[in-house]
Amino acid sequence: MSDEQELGITESKEYNTGEWYAEVVQKANLANYAPEGMSGFIVTRPRAYELWERIQGHLDSLFKDTGVQNAYFPLFIPESYLEREKDIVEGFDPEVAWVETAGNQELEERLAVRPTSESIITPYISQWVRSHRDLPLRVNQWASVVRWEATETKPFFRTKEFLWQEGHTAHATREDAWAETMRRLDQYEATYEDLLAMPVLRGAKPEHDKFPGADTTTTVEALMPDGKSVQGATSHYLGTSFAEAFDITYTDEDEESQIAHTTSWGLSWRAIGALIMTHSDDQGLVLPPAIAPEQIVVVPIWQADTKEEVLEYAEGITEDLEDAGVRVELDDRDERNPGFKFNEWELKGVPVRMEIGPNEADDGTATLVHRPDGESTEVDREDIAETVESHFDEVYAKLYAAAEENLAQNVREADSRADILGTIGQHGGYVKAPWCGDEDCETEIKDQIAAEIVMVPLDDDEAEIHHDDDCAICGDAAVETAYFAKSY
Amino acid sequence: MSDEQELGITESKEYNTGEWYAEVVQKANLANYAPEGMSGFIVTRPRAYELWERIQGHLDSLFKDTGVQNAYFPLFIPESYLEREKDIVEGFDPEVAWVETAGNQELEERLAVRPTSESIITPYISQWVRSHRDLPLRVNQWASVVRWEATETKPFFRTKEFLWQEGHTAHATREDAWAETMRRLDQYEATYEDLLAMPVLRGAKPEHDKFPGADTTTTVEALMPDGKSVQGATSHYLGTSFAEAFDITYTDEDEESQIAHTTSWGLSWRAIGALIMTHSDDQGLVLPPAIAPEQIVVVPIWQADTKEEVLEYAEGITEDLEDAGVRVELDDRDERNPGFKFNEWELKGVPVRMEIGPNEADDGTATLVHRPDGESTEVDREDIAETVESHFDEVYAKLYAAAEENLAQNVREADSRADILGTIGQHGGYVKAPWCGDEDCETEIKDQIAAEIVMVPLDDDEAEIHHDDDCAICGDAAVETAYFAKSY
Ligand SMILES: [Zn+2]
Ligand SMILES: [Zn+2]
Repeated sequence: MSDEQELGITESKEYNTGEWYAEVVQKANLANYAPEGMSGFIVTRPRAYELWERIQGHLDSLFKDTGVQNAYFPLFIPESYLEREKDIVEGFDPEVAWVETAGNQELEERLAVRPTSESIITPYISQWVRSHRDLPLRVNQWASVVRWEATETKPFFRTKEFLWQEGHTAHATREDAWAETMRRLDQYEATYEDLLAMPVLRGAKPEHDKFPGADTTTTVEALMPDGKSVQGATSHYLGTSFAEAFDITYTDEDEESQIAHTTSWGLSWRAIGALIMTHSDDQGLVLPPAIAPEQIVVVPIWQADTKEEVLEYAEGITEDLEDAGVRVELDDRDERNPGFKFNEWELKGVPVRMEIGPNEADDGTATLVHRPDGESTEVDREDIAETVESHFDEVYAKLYAAAEENLAQNVREADSRADILGTIGQHGGYVKAPWCGDEDCETEIKDQIAAEIVMVPLDDDEAEIHHDDDCAICGDAAVETAYFAKSY
Repeated sequence: MSDEQELGITESKEYNTGEWYAEVVQKANLANYAPEGMSGFIVTRPRAYELWERIQGHLDSLFKDTGVQNAYFPLFIPESYLEREKDIVEGFDPEVAWVETAGNQELEERLAVRPTSESIITPYISQWVRSHRDLPLRVNQWASVVRWEATETKPFFRTKEFLWQEGHTAHATREDAWAETMRRLDQYEATYEDLLAMPVLRGAKPEHDKFPGADTTTTVEALMPDGKSVQGATSHYLGTSFAEAFDITYTDEDEESQIAHTTSWGLSWRAIGALIMTHSDDQGLVLPPAIAPEQIVVVPIWQADTKEEVLEYAEGITEDLEDAGVRVELDDRDERNPGFKFNEWELKGVPVRMEIGPNEADDGTATLVHRPDGESTEVDREDIAETVESHFDEVYAKLYAAAEENLAQNVREADSRADILGTIGQHGGYVKAPWCGDEDCETEIKDQIAAEIVMVPLDDDEAEIHHDDDCAICGDAAVETAYFAKSY
């Protein structure tokens, strides 16, 4: 793709994070902006779509191993269905795109392009559940949704259309539904950690910020390099509110009618944005090996008289790696010099580079260079696939450790309003403070510094909860530990 | 799912194909109709979506092995983009759904919900192609599209929204683009044959029925049990018409600007409809083992005193099959008798049933029953996984042979207008006739019996082409062999 020819990131990640991010997305061929008249939309190019395919594959196999089935519901939702949901979940008022004319005719009822699908999925779940033997019932949909937000576009973080999955389940008991909520949160956490090399914080949203209609909204939060938090995925225990509204009842073993408990959970392509933002640097994209389109690039370095020997040696290694299932690219282009190739593959985020010159070919070795820190190692030709795999593990470990260190350094404590404001103002990141649970105390912080409570620890993590302290803002008795942060 | 309880197909495949099909779709839990106000849409339930996932997986891996990358383009297309395509491809006037209001505001330009995406994909391909080194460029999208046709809904065959893939490629030469067109047609044919156990006919659409703007439209056609032909997938060689209109040019090795040759190709969930229609029977769904959600169901048959022994034996076999990667379901429900279970799994299309009673447990055997014809075989417990796999092969072979025989018996020849009309009227299926190439001669047949020319053999299959005969309709010199058929 020829727009690769303008190589080189010019913006600084540290000083100009937003512009740097936009430049990486464009120059690493991840996305283009959509045509005029469609601001807020993006074209997801193959290299970014492949990241989404790997996230999808990873998560989908976790889902399927734990009883989830995929389905597909219509793209449109009749207005009356959305209205019905509004009645249940006060405050739910998505900014939607409407279809009023189709096939050259005005529709009797206008149709929303789905902003989320629970208002159409839940009535069908109600139809499909009759007996306790039908439970638990778990349905998931991978699709795009449209929310017509007017805010500035940031590819993968904020777009009017985005790709995501939404899971919806029904259960006989509260315990079973709660276990489901936690199971999905665990799977989101594992996906961030194992696939994306990103540590996350787990917690619940405060009462006033949970999903409308939910009993509990849980979240995984990831810290971005600019000190802001990203909500990485959410998992909701919905109690019986949706089941009551949509009549999801079942007959139990004694033939009595019972109301079901439901959950829902979702992860969007924002995960791609968080991934790019976390690991990449001023040379371009950085990717963990498990998700990288190419895991290793082999760059042969020759003069006219060594070309044949070096190339043959490089091809042999490439073949061995392919046979071992490694995603390897041999960059044998004649028209580019090695320095150009190094820069290009660094920009594209290939985790490990292998350099092969006549010395390596003669000695039966190869030089491996790690993308994140440029560390270079000479390795033996023998068992090359195993060696390369172990270097992938090292690169993963480096990326994870750096993100983990950044997170650990950016969770601070505060015990007064001034302290909260000052700490976030100076450092960003998370500030933990004892909190009375009252939204007004959050509002005071929000109004002054645009930080909010992104999570409180889950009840099962008792140690974190400030039962004995006073609220850092109002001085009343604290019942929670609030994590304040600026947020995407 | 409780609606399974109304078991049993009541309509006849032979005498009432349409109603029989609708009943199979509903009772095998494949799809529901969408809510009121959304006629023409369906809810794709997990058992049908799993069929789509396997078709997608099969085809996607063929695509990726041959250089295709997936991408994702916006759901909406500005009206001016669609208009631009209309200019190129006279006659292209999809019935679209329009978004005119979004986020509580009227849009400056209305947006079409994509009826197909070439009008937005092609301009980006134009942006991405600069040099001959960027070619071939191959992009594919898996997504849903919306076409507001007013005709009656038939799940998977005819719905206002459907799932499909569309591939778009650009090439330096005509030869390369034509090879691509044939490569995709081959892959569609292989998917029908290998995965769906359906033989297809390959051919080209007549000049007057090709995709607007295309140089050549190729097709795979499948014969349905009611004697009608289904267009199973299409692959278009677009020549340079799209490249000219959208300015897809590249600089060649001599730095001269050249126009690219492009192709496009697509397959929709109509493949699911054709699959259901072809193999299923008056007992319900029939599926080839490669695509079936459950490939085999183990039904233990016990009395109170033999239950423990039989169940333990059945569990051991189930485990062996699972370990070998077989998709197996052990139906150990207490509340259902074996006869009920047999009927239910027949309805659901499980290709092989294993019956295990006390005799089998004592003798170290098992009874295998083939879904398509009820053939029953006693087999040894030893090497059970291998044995079961070979029975899968047998079931596949039976399904394929039956469909192949049906196809072979339903391609007939005719050499006069009366003969064409009479043969299609009496038998349905395909009627081959020498044809002059003039649309008027097709119109005569169409007007009288609603049959059309669904394909002509491809040029590379010279033997099929009637160069020496006269057109069966007008008597002028024939230049093609036309395959007339009624069509979905
Ligand atoms: Zn307070
Ligand atoms: Zn004629």
